[in-house]
Amino acid sequence: MAKIVTFGEIMLRLSTINCERFSQAKSFDLCFGGGEANVAVSLAHYGHDAYFISKLPDNDIGKAALKSLKSEDVRCNYVVKGGNRIGIYYLEVGSSLRGSKVIYDRSRSAISESNFEEYNFEEALNGAEVFHFTGITPALSENCALLIKKACIVAKKLGVTVSCDLNYRKKLWTKEKARQVMIPLVEYVDICIGNEEDFEACLGYKPDSDIIKGKTDAAGYKNIFKTLYKDFNFKYVASTLRESYSSSHNGWKGLLFDGQTFYESKHYDIEPIVDRVGSGDSFAAGLIHGLLTQNDKQKALEFAIAASALKHTIPGDFNQVSEEEVWNLVNGDSSGRVSR
Amino acid sequence: MAKIVTFGEIMLRLSTINCERFSQAKSFDLCFGGGEANVAVSLAHYGHDAYFISKLPDNDIGKAALKSLKSEDVRCNYVVKGGNRIGIYYLEVGSSLRGSKVIYDRSRSAISESNFEEYNFEEALNGAEVFHFTGITPALSENCALLIKKACIVAKKLGVTVSCDLNYRKKLWTKEKARQVMIPLVEYVDICIGNEEDFEACLGYKPDSDIIKGKTDAAGYKNIFKTLYKDFNFKYVASTLRESYSSSHNGWKGLLFDGQTFYESKHYDIEPIVDRVGSGDSFAAGLIHGLLTQNDKQKALEFAIAASALKHTIPGDFNQVSEEEVWNLVNGDSSGRVSR
Amino acid sequence: MAKIVTFGEIMLRLSTINCERFSQAKSFDLCFGGGEANVAVSLAHYGHDAYFISKLPDNDIGKAALKSLKSEDVRCNYVVKGGNRIGIYYLEVGSSLRGSKVIYDRSRSAISESNFEEYNFEEALNGAEVFHFTGITPALSENCALLIKKACIVAKKLGVTVSCDLNYRKKLWTKEKARQVMIPLVEYVDICIGNEEDFEACLGYKPDSDIIKGKTDAAGYKNIFKTLYKDFNFKYVASTLRESYSSSHNGWKGLLFDGQTFYESKHYDIEPIVDRVGSGDSFAAGLIHGLLTQNDKQKALEFAIAASALKHTIPGDFNQVSEEEVWNLVNGDSSGRVSR
Amino acid sequence: MAKIVTFGEIMLRLSTINCERFSQAKSFDLCFGGGEANVAVSLAHYGHDAYFISKLPDNDIGKAALKSLKSEDVRCNYVVKGGNRIGIYYLEVGSSLRGSKVIYDRSRSAISESNFEEYNFEEALNGAEVFHFTGITPALSENCALLIKKACIVAKKLGVTVSCDLNYRKKLWTKEKARQVMIPLVEYVDICIGNEEDFEACLGYKPDSDIIKGKTDAAGYKNIFKTLYKDFNFKYVASTLRESYSSSHNGWKGLLFDGQTFYESKHYDIEPIVDRVGSGDSFAAGLIHGLLTQNDKQKALEFAIAASALKHTIPGDFNQVSEEEVWNLVNGDSSGRVSR
Amino acid sequence: MAKIVTFGEIMLRLSTINCERFSQAKSFDLCFGGGEANVAVSLAHYGHDAYFISKLPDNDIGKAALKSLKSEDVRCNYVVKGGNRIGIYYLEVGSSLRGSKVIYDRSRSAISESNFEEYNFEEALNGAEVFHFTGITPALSENCALLIKKACIVAKKLGVTVSCDLNYRKKLWTKEKARQVMIPLVEYVDICIGNEEDFEACLGYKPDSDIIKGKTDAAGYKNIFKTLYKDFNFKYVASTLRESYSSSHNGWKGLLFDGQTFYESKHYDIEPIVDRVGSGDSFAAGLIHGLLTQNDKQKALEFAIAASALKHTIPGDFNQVSEEEVWNLVNGDSSGRVSR
Amino acid sequence: MAKIVTFGEIMLRLSTINCERFSQAKSFDLCFGGGEANVAVSLAHYGHDAYFISKLPDNDIGKAALKSLKSEDVRCNYVVKGGNRIGIYYLEVGSSLRGSKVIYDRSRSAISESNFEEYNFEEALNGAEVFHFTGITPALSENCALLIKKACIVAKKLGVTVSCDLNYRKKLWTKEKARQVMIPLVEYVDICIGNEEDFEACLGYKPDSDIIKGKTDAAGYKNIFKTLYKDFNFKYVASTLRESYSSSHNGWKGLLFDGQTFYESKHYDIEPIVDRVGSGDSFAAGLIHGLLTQNDKQKALEFAIAASALKHTIPGDFNQVSEEEVWNLVNGDSSGRVSR
Repeated sequence: MAKIVTFGEIMLRLSTINCERFSQAKSFDLCFGGGEANVAVSLAHYGHDAYFISKLPDNDIGKAALKSLKSEDVRCNYVVKGGNRIGIYYLEVGSSLRGSKVIYDRSRSAISESNFEEYNFEEALNGAEVFHFTGITPALSENCALLIKKACIVAKKLGVTVSCDLNYRKKLWTKEKARQVMIPLVEYVDICIGNEEDFEACLGYKPDSDIIKGKTDAAGYKNIFKTLYKDFNFKYVASTLRESYSSSHNGWKGLLFDGQTFYESKHYDIEPIVDRVGSGDSFAAGLIHGLLTQNDKQKALEFAIAASALKHTIPGDFNQVSEEEVWNLVNGDSSGRVSR
Repeated sequence: MAKIVTFGEIMLRLSTINCERFSQAKSFDLCFGGGEANVAVSLAHYGHDAYFISKLPDNDIGKAALKSLKSEDVRCNYVVKGGNRIGIYYLEVGSSLRGSKVIYDRSRSAISESNFEEYNFEEALNGAEVFHFTGITPALSENCALLIKKACIVAKKLGVTVSCDLNYRKKLWTKEKARQVMIPLVEYVDICIGNEEDFEACLGYKPDSDIIKGKTDAAGYKNIFKTLYKDFNFKYVASTLRESYSSSHNGWKGLLFDGQTFYESKHYDIEPIVDRVGSGDSFAAGLIHGLLTQNDKQKALEFAIAASALKHTIPGDFNQVSEEEVWNLVNGDSSGRVSR
Repeated sequence: MAKIVTFGEIMLRLSTINCERFSQAKSFDLCFGGGEANVAVSLAHYGHDAYFISKLPDNDIGKAALKSLKSEDVRCNYVVKGGNRIGIYYLEVGSSLRGSKVIYDRSRSAISESNFEEYNFEEALNGAEVFHFTGITPALSENCALLIKKACIVAKKLGVTVSCDLNYRKKLWTKEKARQVMIPLVEYVDICIGNEEDFEACLGYKPDSDIIKGKTDAAGYKNIFKTLYKDFNFKYVASTLRESYSSSHNGWKGLLFDGQTFYESKHYDIEPIVDRVGSGDSFAAGLIHGLLTQNDKQKALEFAIAASALKHTIPGDFNQVSEEEVWNLVNGDSSGRVSR
Repeated sequence: MAKIVTFGEIMLRLSTINCERFSQAKSFDLCFGGGEANVAVSLAHYGHDAYFISKLPDNDIGKAALKSLKSEDVRCNYVVKGGNRIGIYYLEVGSSLRGSKVIYDRSRSAISESNFEEYNFEEALNGAEVFHFTGITPALSENCALLIKKACIVAKKLGVTVSCDLNYRKKLWTKEKARQVMIPLVEYVDICIGNEEDFEACLGYKPDSDIIKGKTDAAGYKNIFKTLYKDFNFKYVASTLRESYSSSHNGWKGLLFDGQTFYESKHYDIEPIVDRVGSGDSFAAGLIHGLLTQNDKQKALEFAIAASALKHTIPGDFNQVSEEEVWNLVNGDSSGRVSR
Repeated sequence: MAKIVTFGEIMLRLSTINCERFSQAKSFDLCFGGGEANVAVSLAHYGHDAYFISKLPDNDIGKAALKSLKSEDVRCNYVVKGGNRIGIYYLEVGSSLRGSKVIYDRSRSAISESNFEEYNFEEALNGAEVFHFTGITPALSENCALLIKKACIVAKKLGVTVSCDLNYRKKLWTKEKARQVMIPLVEYVDICIGNEEDFEACLGYKPDSDIIKGKTDAAGYKNIFKTLYKDFNFKYVASTLRESYSSSHNGWKGLLFDGQTFYESKHYDIEPIVDRVGSGDSFAAGLIHGLLTQNDKQKALEFAIAASALKHTIPGDFNQVSEEEVWNLVNGDSSGRVSR
Repeated sequence: MAKIVTFGEIMLRLSTINCERFSQAKSFDLCFGGGEANVAVSLAHYGHDAYFISKLPDNDIGKAALKSLKSEDVRCNYVVKGGNRIGIYYLEVGSSLRGSKVIYDRSRSAISESNFEEYNFEEALNGAEVFHFTGITPALSENCALLIKKACIVAKKLGVTVSCDLNYRKKLWTKEKARQVMIPLVEYVDICIGNEEDFEACLGYKPDSDIIKGKTDAAGYKNIFKTLYKDFNFKYVASTLRESYSSSHNGWKGLLFDGQTFYESKHYDIEPIVDRVGSGDSFAAGLIHGLLTQNDKQKALEFAIAASALKHTIPGDFNQVSEEEVWNLVNGDSSGRVSR
């Protein structure tokens, strides 16, 4: 299988239990997660040599984050130890009409105050097939934005495919700032993944859809995919389409454009949703795996969307599924029968 | 904001967890709740000076009940200490085809054996804008029925608006007894809230609807609302309409009549239901808040029904929502997207 | 009420919690269950003298299994103590698109290595009205297949009605093996219960339906029911029809043929499903109870399907419902209203 | 083994977890327990036909109490259904310098309002070797005091040995009241069990010891044992001696007098204490079992004190130990080595 | 009772459960605590008008901190909303030979970046009898050190007694820095509380004792108490003496000097320790209460040390005891008998 | 650091919680452990390249066992997948006078049915400094006994030091069988570890001590250590001495003999014990680490005994401590002070 490298922040996640609100909580479930870490975990599960690079404080919480990655077979050799703190996100899990709520406490985290020179990207990216990052990382700090740029330059120099999930986070930066940073960055990108909000916020391209109303229209993406493909010279543009009926019930579908054909995946109806955090990351990982292993682009996309549909049924940021389980869903077994 | 006073019983609630039946339980979640206490909590969350009056035993369980109220900013100065015991209700949480089940163990509770003279209603109601009680309190005992009557007289004397949620409880009294007590009592009431069952059981007015079959028809309420308005000289008559598809899935809507216009709220589809106990109370509180702060009666009603729709997603009797969150739902964001 | 005897394996069940996957679990909920034990529990709840016969190791885990049965009023006098181990099944509870997963660790269990001579079937079956077993037991070992045959012979000799739920388990044996064992065995059977998969796998009769696609067609069963009735001289043939929309949402219906009339039950829509393990057993028990107590076969079937619909809402293998609760559902109250 | 009958109240016990105080609790562990029920459970574990008689409300909480008894092999045929409520006791588990705290909410329980005529003591006591009750039951109500007297008369008539654990509860009655009721009652008693407080409070006989200071002196009991033996014509007088160093650490010893010899058991040092509620009951049960099965009175006493020492290590009211485990401790293995 | 004001940081505390290490945790218990907040809670429990002043972020975690204070009757009117984050401390609970471990993540907290001008000390301290702070607050930032100084000046101007618990935290600053800041600050202090480490680290006065070896000698304090009293013109100097036998077992004693007499409290042996965090704060609060209400200084000290001894048995930072419970322990009941 | 290889069985451990007995459990905590796996984990924590070799079934439970090892940095390249089942042990955690109880369900596990030829010992042991196994493995099956012998031959051929912890398990084999197998096996051993019971049961050498009575006498070991050293040509003989005061309180000490000097470690008093399973393994691992890194044998022994003393305070089989934490204890900080 392939060597794949991701770089970004992994945070301590503190989530409420039993549908409690923050104001009711007497305990938090804890796990670790972050866009690029989540992608690395999925790829390790599919059998790849998945490396995650980051910086973590040299204390027991930082070590616990590393332990959680190692337990999933992610290679952490290039993780740097130091800095003051691990970023935190508090997650209040919603239900039905009440959406989930995230409170970030991630400023001044170890990675956000780190520099390119602390990492060994030359060695880490050597022999890699894909380098993946998300739009969250450059939003963390000026340092990080610069660091990502330099890492992309190394990747391109070494002939590594660059994948980016735009992942706009409005609690981290404004659209103006995002565009100012991301537009130059995506020049290095080969595989560009986003959703309707991301394309608009980060790059300024708006599909014809309406996320608040929960309606999505695959056709509305064709034009911007073509334009994006042309304007940024991407190899692939991909998107997930989420129909948000409620916090517990979503429709889910994926789109992929390779410059020639516009692929649209099967549609999944997901109810109830156990945990939707990390579903975008599981799509990105599934797409990378699909494109690396399938000639048929439709199959690659189906793998990606099925993998991420399953993620919605699993607690935590990490997608705990095997390649075989994803193919079983692609091949049509969504009946939920007990296997015995 | 306004000073609002509620009077009634707060009980220890012992509920099963993880969908267990009573016969399976090895532990109970505990919280405290009761119609009027729940209303006070909501109103405190919306910024009002909310007072709850009751009588509680002077032991650690009674103190824990008070602590739970204080933590929600409810003022408890007028709560009387004494009596033998706190009322209890056991709640078996249902799911799907299996309804939730309540076992009351509330007879001989401190409040049920208390008298009007033990309380200081004159002082408590002085300067208040609203006095709220429910039809549960007069059902507790003869003492309580008399006490409520005397409290209403004080409220009227002091120019306080009186609000009553009829809340018929068939495990506490018969329809005959309920009507005998409630019909004279509602003479003091300005805002009368009920559902189809309550109007019939407590006052003898039956709308055209069928609660067992889960169908509700707003039109069926017009006639009785008009009649009630006229017969009892209410300022407002309001009702919730619940469509009980299952224990986990309800439709939810509100109605309001101000003597001139018949207002009908948006309809909410709630699935899954986390905890529907206290949803009627959150409607009453939302309506009181809406009528106190909105000139537009439609808006007042929309606030009330959205607040109570959200209650269904929150464990415990108390509605843990802010005014802002309710308005967000009124304004259309029910997509349950993660806010981050 | 009647004396009813069931024989089979009761296992330790270790199930994941909070929708975790096996790879995430740090604790397991434990309970005990098995097809025939589950039937005995239901029948004890309906007031019968329900005996469960099995062999269990003489250690604290075996004793805990017995304790769980006694707590449900099942009589365990004829359970034999000895052997090396209790069988185990690990259950990963699925959700939405992800099905539940069972891992068996039951080989070499005490019962699977036991012989007919160790048990006292003559005494146990004396005076019984029904002897019930499932197709799981003969699949455990050659010993067990022979033992069941001998037990059936005793039952027939004593005039006891024999009931069998075919319950094909593909992780225990192949279709070829199943047919080789089951076809001769069902010669002793009066009440034969199965689903579309069971009839085909165990007996070689295939209805026109498609379990993977989640569609079921009652009409498709008429022919095979008639043929089965004739070929095996059954008194009753019955089946459940499951529409597997997802792991959390099923349609549910029952069929019964008495040689003359083809009965089809009401259809239930069950969402969310709390625990569907044991739902087939609760149908079998409901049918036995229905046939023993109702002249009207339609009512017997309605009881059986309503009982098993309720089972889906209850955690664990055992169906924790009373006869009264089942009749309430048969009579139409599926609204899930809170009873208070 | 012997038929043994106990009569008394079984309560719902709601206990705090993780050393929380009542003011901190968000959930309670629940179990059921009461002096006479606890004795019946121990005796059933030792292989006796142990009957528990009581009255319980015909609701799901009452049924759960019965289920907990049946799961321990206690026979409940003579339990009467009816009445308004089950008694409750709240238990705050202490630690170190902080003692455990009990809040009773047991007034108006089903048994306390029941009469002798509701029970079938004639049949229940027929063939029994021992009838056991505690001083708690007559403290519940006038009804209960009378009922116990009548039951004792039946027992004596049928030649059944009567055993009584004095169990003074200062939250239920005063010493004056206790003596007034208990002194006539113990006229029927053959085996009288108490501790230093009980003898004084219930019968007016004070040994030379000091429970607050945690010192106990076996010698101080000799005189009152002799006097009690003589005054009430007991067959046996027995006592436990608790040295309360702290809530987590006790010394424990037993005394027995048979009119001739004064037996003193080994001394056990118990630290930490998991749950000391029910330890007195496990002594009573152990003594009954010992006297029924051992000619050597010293052995009988050693069994009783070892059984109750083990009880301190087990959560809940019921003593979950086998006869073999008790003898192992009697025979000296208190090292706590892992058995593997 | 008195008006008492405390100022400082309240943090989110995330603690491991069941003796797990950080590397094993899958969930954290959460509560809120901090030196001055803990003192305010104790004083509110003893009936005082206890005000806590701080700055907290205007998000759900900050609100939850406030809620926890209000639930304990602490007045929070003067708490300022704003800033970026709440400080956090992770607590790994030790046992036996393994000490508890604290990881601070409190830099850049709202209070640490706040200024004197944001608070209304003039109004808050008006009419107060005591103003209490700890040496932790000036260690948070230069801002906080200055702020405390200005607050002390206001207190002195208004005639408010100033109490300070030195509370040296080596993870926050060095001894050199601590002395540089604290020595000028204690000029304003009337009641100075510390332990052997604090006096040395913050003020440079070393008693003759050895904290690592777990030995403490009250006599060794006499000299430095006299010197401190003279050098800083304190009204009272007080100290706790902890004998750390292990993480689960401590000896505990208090000392007080009023310029004339050297008071030494009873000695408590605490085993097991449930949670020793906050025990120093419960001593400070007990001492303030004792000095305010008792003429007898020995009694004041006994109250303080008994209150803090009890704290060791209660989970969380807050001391959940009533004045009555403390006096019971002072008066000698440490036997841990069940009260029933 | 060194390459170290261990071979043996890793089991699923199912343990009761909150001091429950097996008969009370409704859930089990789960983890994985086994003598040699535990040693590998400790060594990985100290920075070594620790390899664990075993055979595990290719199902989700087997994968979870591997995941738990990887999360601790143990290398699992040489683990073979296959076989029928993972071994299980049930652990009832004792307290005070009640010892912990282990029920094995490990027969027919994957490793017990495996052969030498399935593993690649040549490659795994190449370059290793130590090969470690325990006396449990040869007790599993004839296969395993032979396999261990062959592995030892490979180790000796490659110049790898062989370490063996005798670990007699009376539930797996008799003393006769153990001696017959172990005496020839220890011919290959360089470092021989045992306790008083092991030396006697496995090798037939009895020190002068008495484990039931909980007394241990280091002097009593001198003779047998010398004899063992001479008879088997060991490089080191080592032993732990456990003083079992109760299930919650042990004394703990270690002994080492290198042919010249008899080393005796410090004595630790451990109370309360959180989990003593795996303490012997943590001693073995500590000793291997000590001997590999310290010239001073006394230091090596002190490291080993301190590491294992800490293990008693940590739940699960694995010793979650760092090298630094162990040295801190060796250097005298056992006060359990909070580090903050």
